[in-house]
Amino acid sequence: MGIRVGVAGASGYAGGELLRLLAGHPEFDLVTATAHSQAGRPVGAVHPHLSGLDLTLTATGPDAFADADLVFLALPHGQSAALANELPETVKIVDLGADFRLHDGGAWERYYGGPHAGTWTYGLPELPGQRERIANSARVANTGCYAVTTILALAPLIAAGVADPEDVVVVASSGTSGAGKSPKPHLLASEVMGGLSTYKTGRHQHVPEIKQATGAKSLSFTPVLAPMPRGILATVTARALGDADPHDVLKRAYAADPFVHVLEEDQWPRTASVSGSNSVHLQATVDVDSGRIIAVSASDNLGKGAAGQAVQNANLMFGLPETTGLQIYGVAP
Amino acid sequence: MGIRVGVAGASGYAGGELLRLLAGHPEFDLVTATAHSQAGRPVGAVHPHLSGLDLTLTATGPDAFADADLVFLALPHGQSAALANELPETVKIVDLGADFRLHDGGAWERYYGGPHAGTWTYGLPELPGQRERIANSARVANTGCYAVTTILALAPLIAAGVADPEDVVVVASSGTSGAGKSPKPHLLASEVMGGLSTYKTGRHQHVPEIKQATGAKSLSFTPVLAPMPRGILATVTARALGDADPHDVLKRAYAADPFVHVLEEDQWPRTASVSGSNSVHLQATVDVDSGRIIAVSASDNLGKGAAGQAVQNANLMFGLPETTGLQIYGVAP
Amino acid sequence: MGIRVGVAGASGYAGGELLRLLAGHPEFDLVTATAHSQAGRPVGAVHPHLSGLDLTLTATGPDAFADADLVFLALPHGQSAALANELPETVKIVDLGADFRLHDGGAWERYYGGPHAGTWTYGLPELPGQRERIANSARVANTGCYAVTTILALAPLIAAGVADPEDVVVVASSGTSGAGKSPKPHLLASEVMGGLSTYKTGRHQHVPEIKQATGAKSLSFTPVLAPMPRGILATVTARALGDADPHDVLKRAYAADPFVHVLEEDQWPRTASVSGSNSVHLQATVDVDSGRIIAVSASDNLGKGAAGQAVQNANLMFGLPETTGLQIYGVAP
Amino acid sequence: MGIRVGVAGASGYAGGELLRLLAGHPEFDLVTATAHSQAGRPVGAVHPHLSGLDLTLTATGPDAFADADLVFLALPHGQSAALANELPETVKIVDLGADFRLHDGGAWERYYGGPHAGTWTYGLPELPGQRERIANSARVANTGCYAVTTILALAPLIAAGVADPEDVVVVASSGTSGAGKSPKPHLLASEVMGGLSTYKTGRHQHVPEIKQATGAKSLSFTPVLAPMPRGILATVTARALGDADPHDVLKRAYAADPFVHVLEEDQWPRTASVSGSNSVHLQATVDVDSGRIIAVSASDNLGKGAAGQAVQNANLMFGLPETTGLQIYGVAP
Repeated sequence: MGIRVGVAGASGYAGGELLRLLAGHPEFDLVTATAHSQAGRPVGAVHPHLSGLDLTLTATGPDAFADADLVFLALPHGQSAALANELPETVKIVDLGADFRLHDGGAWERYYGGPHAGTWTYGLPELPGQRERIANSARVANTGCYAVTTILALAPLIAAGVADPEDVVVVASSGTSGAGKSPKPHLLASEVMGGLSTYKTGRHQHVPEIKQATGAKSLSFTPVLAPMPRGILATVTARALGDADPHDVLKRAYAADPFVHVLEEDQWPRTASVSGSNSVHLQATVDVDSGRIIAVSASDNLGKGAAGQAVQNANLMFGLPETTGLQIYGVAP
Repeated sequence: MGIRVGVAGASGYAGGELLRLLAGHPEFDLVTATAHSQAGRPVGAVHPHLSGLDLTLTATGPDAFADADLVFLALPHGQSAALANELPETVKIVDLGADFRLHDGGAWERYYGGPHAGTWTYGLPELPGQRERIANSARVANTGCYAVTTILALAPLIAAGVADPEDVVVVASSGTSGAGKSPKPHLLASEVMGGLSTYKTGRHQHVPEIKQATGAKSLSFTPVLAPMPRGILATVTARALGDADPHDVLKRAYAADPFVHVLEEDQWPRTASVSGSNSVHLQATVDVDSGRIIAVSASDNLGKGAAGQAVQNANLMFGLPETTGLQIYGVAP
Repeated sequence: MGIRVGVAGASGYAGGELLRLLAGHPEFDLVTATAHSQAGRPVGAVHPHLSGLDLTLTATGPDAFADADLVFLALPHGQSAALANELPETVKIVDLGADFRLHDGGAWERYYGGPHAGTWTYGLPELPGQRERIANSARVANTGCYAVTTILALAPLIAAGVADPEDVVVVASSGTSGAGKSPKPHLLASEVMGGLSTYKTGRHQHVPEIKQATGAKSLSFTPVLAPMPRGILATVTARALGDADPHDVLKRAYAADPFVHVLEEDQWPRTASVSGSNSVHLQATVDVDSGRIIAVSASDNLGKGAAGQAVQNANLMFGLPETTGLQIYGVAP
Repeated sequence: MGIRVGVAGASGYAGGELLRLLAGHPEFDLVTATAHSQAGRPVGAVHPHLSGLDLTLTATGPDAFADADLVFLALPHGQSAALANELPETVKIVDLGADFRLHDGGAWERYYGGPHAGTWTYGLPELPGQRERIANSARVANTGCYAVTTILALAPLIAAGVADPEDVVVVASSGTSGAGKSPKPHLLASEVMGGLSTYKTGRHQHVPEIKQATGAKSLSFTPVLAPMPRGILATVTARALGDADPHDVLKRAYAADPFVHVLEEDQWPRTASVSGSNSVHLQATVDVDSGRIIAVSASDNLGKGAAGQAVQNANLMFGLPETTGLQIYGVAP
């Protein structure tokens, strides 16, 4: 028998993507999926694309996961700790929420509000040494979607001394699934299609997470809502230090990583290329006028930005090949 | 070593989807991919979502497939016969083009022009008895994308005597990938986004294929170009004969088929639900004013409508489980 | 001083489009706009595209329109009668709701529920003799959006004896603004973008309105939700009676109408072409297989399907040129 | 009789938008529209949304404009000078191309290549003193679409000493019509829908134009192609100098401008709000982490970014009210 897996918060978009990935995973057996208001409904009624998956959502709580070996938490920010504290230590947990990502409790309180729950192993295997830490952890905090997209472009450039950690400027556009499934007026199709807009301008909660993981000292981060269901495109700029080619730095940094692809020099990342996959595409150059490094990163916010990354971390935690049950190639066009 | 597979016409959208599926197939080893004007380029340069796939496109011709066990032809209509005739009989072939679909040479000439190349086993396993015929064939003609989407909704209703084969009316909308990758003015994003339009109105070439497979005697078929990259939604209407519930007829017809899902009574098919998968979602009811049956069918034109169906057929031809290397659940949202 | 105009129900999409058109109308002075939950907010806060329009929404009620010469009602179905009954007879009213469209109270009750409020002059000037009736009316019931799009294609064909009124089949796709501004889960951008789905399949409330205006005896009408904010594309099919060219019939019928354009023979209507305008584009042919007439019609559901049509009717009611303050050409691409 | 107007290069997107605006302009009479490969075709065949406009495209050349009072040039970059030099000085000209925008011939050659044609009055009326210069000019160089969107946000902040002109960073996303109507593979709907990508990364030709008009000393500008037909959203960041509120600075700068709207403090610009109009929406704040000013600007690339701006300039050149024939409110949703 395989590894028994539960998903808490399975009715949202990240939860649905987890169910989709787990349904095709050769080692993880999806046994329990819980939800709040949707408890009691078959999965196919809540996620029509999963019609045929024989599973009914149950109420979220520790009993639902009594015989699970692995639990994914896909709950609203601030709700993970209460459930995690009631699960036995033998259960391995990947939290897709923000609760356990930050070392700095003060930053948590400034950006998220409420008390800081604590700090778990940060779930980004591509950071130096992090793959091993994750493999040895029973509790892992998955990355934020904007955060991982930005960090993968920025961290090696700062680490190599090529990009100045002072005055990093990021503008990143996300598809609408990143904003969740609650029906809010500004997320209506009529409002979103055919247009772009910024939001949380000047104060996005992924800023401290990106600074913590990259060493950036000052970070201006502007998120943009884009008319597409999935995908994040981050444009990351920082002053160049020295003459090293940022493309080469990225190429070397990720030479051994199965999910991070530094494109050939004439290609620039496109979110459509990684849709449905766990991959991230990267490219970088130096701006001819300003001399700033411009690094561009494309991810699927539900893939590497949420559910795919969570499965990658769980694979590591159970000693499985990192790519088990995950797609390297996106569904395009 | 696995089954050695080649793809002719790998630079188009159906070809790209074949490469994506074959790259993840556990039994088929993708060894050759050919193209015309793109020959010599790495796959990742032509299909950016396949960046990292270590394969270079070569020129199309029989030599390219000298040591293949299985060849997929994804060539423009009318070009399959020339290549197929030069491949040894021991090579199994699935043709994604229209060349070998029709029994009626006259219908071929009226709708496609040029001489009729012949007739191969029709590659739609869900038709009665067809799964076995495909398994015993070395040459299989894959279905048209509109055709399969319509046939799966219509064939059981006519076969059960529930729908009148006279005066069938179908309006079906397709995403743009069905129109191919050649840059034509009306396929520009600026022209397509935010709008809908009909095309080939009153004379679409899938009409004889649908009639052949369903027994429809008269068929009005109108295709619509929709602002989405993938997916077909077909609304299929026919006069009801008797009082049988068309939903029940469909439910019984596909009870054992892994890729055809007749939805619960309150759910209607959505193309987004099957995107990236080989599944088709179906629903049917009777119109309260006219008494006509309205059956609705959703597919991915590159999945069940092209590459997914082709892999499903190839699985059968090699005695593999039908679902090998294919997705049942779409990538949504 | 111009004609004093009020809009009841100005916070929805049809209401917003009315405000936009009235803000640029040379004879109508927009003096009052009312809303329910949004009362008290400036127009620009509710409709960001109208930022700069110096008007605050007030509560809906007869007092709000005390000194109006003309009132547009853009209220939910079933709410127009209560307000209309409290306005003096000297005030001219155009109702954008369904309340006063139908002659047949029984049809109203079957499709809308609740008591039938009555019947006003039907607000479709392009029907024979209707322009004069509207000009002589103080109460006009605007058309439904699907209804007008279908009627303009179908009515002349039935009237000319070219199309059989038995067994008319219509499949029509609409942009999302037709579904209103209330945040419902299935209208979220994540759910709508990249996909198509049918809804109210087999029982849409515009059926009796279309039958009443065209003389169709049996009508199968299937609506489809399309990933675009605006626009309706209707495919209207009926058995051909005789050999007349349906294109010519339409061309003659609308030779003098400024907003209905029968395209040249090689052009098919596209919704994007009429977006933002009050125009409808038409084309028709005969299907080569079935011999059915296929007529295709494109409109803007908020233009000719709602607010534009309402202004056109009001122009007629006040003896103004029909095109005053309206656009003939859509905003494309 | 009104002012006689011709459009050179009327078959492209900017040309089509000019025709649409001129068809509704009360003082300008559209008498001639020219094109290259499309010469001889009726306007409605080339621009289906202009069906009904009774005008045939003729070949581009000085004879076509022999009796024009005003000519708009909407030609590819580098082609305006040849035609402009052959038109009499009495003809007023607005050039929508880049040929005459720059003072610095060296910058022209670096970014555009070829010889510098010269410098005309820069057609951005909202810059201090520029409205008068335009009114007194017979030759005006219209702005670039990215340029005007960025300049309107940035220029007052630098002029007021609030934003540091060193190290300005801009990321701006555009709809596809900005890339023109020539069918190129990367502009296919299948490629664009559902995704975002950067292009000309690190070396966009609007950089010198923005620096010239704003006084920025160093400018990193990254353009992004977005899945929408129209619209530009620019995120403009610069280090704050002092404590002034950038919102207030913008509000004061544009208090008297009919087409530039600085939104209320809780609203952020959305491109959909200005679609089809000549308006620009602005907002600004200070980033809490970095202290950089973030100013956001939304325009219609074919409106204020091209044809609308051109008509606004022509209105000024002929002493007409600036808003004649132009829309202040966008077509939304």
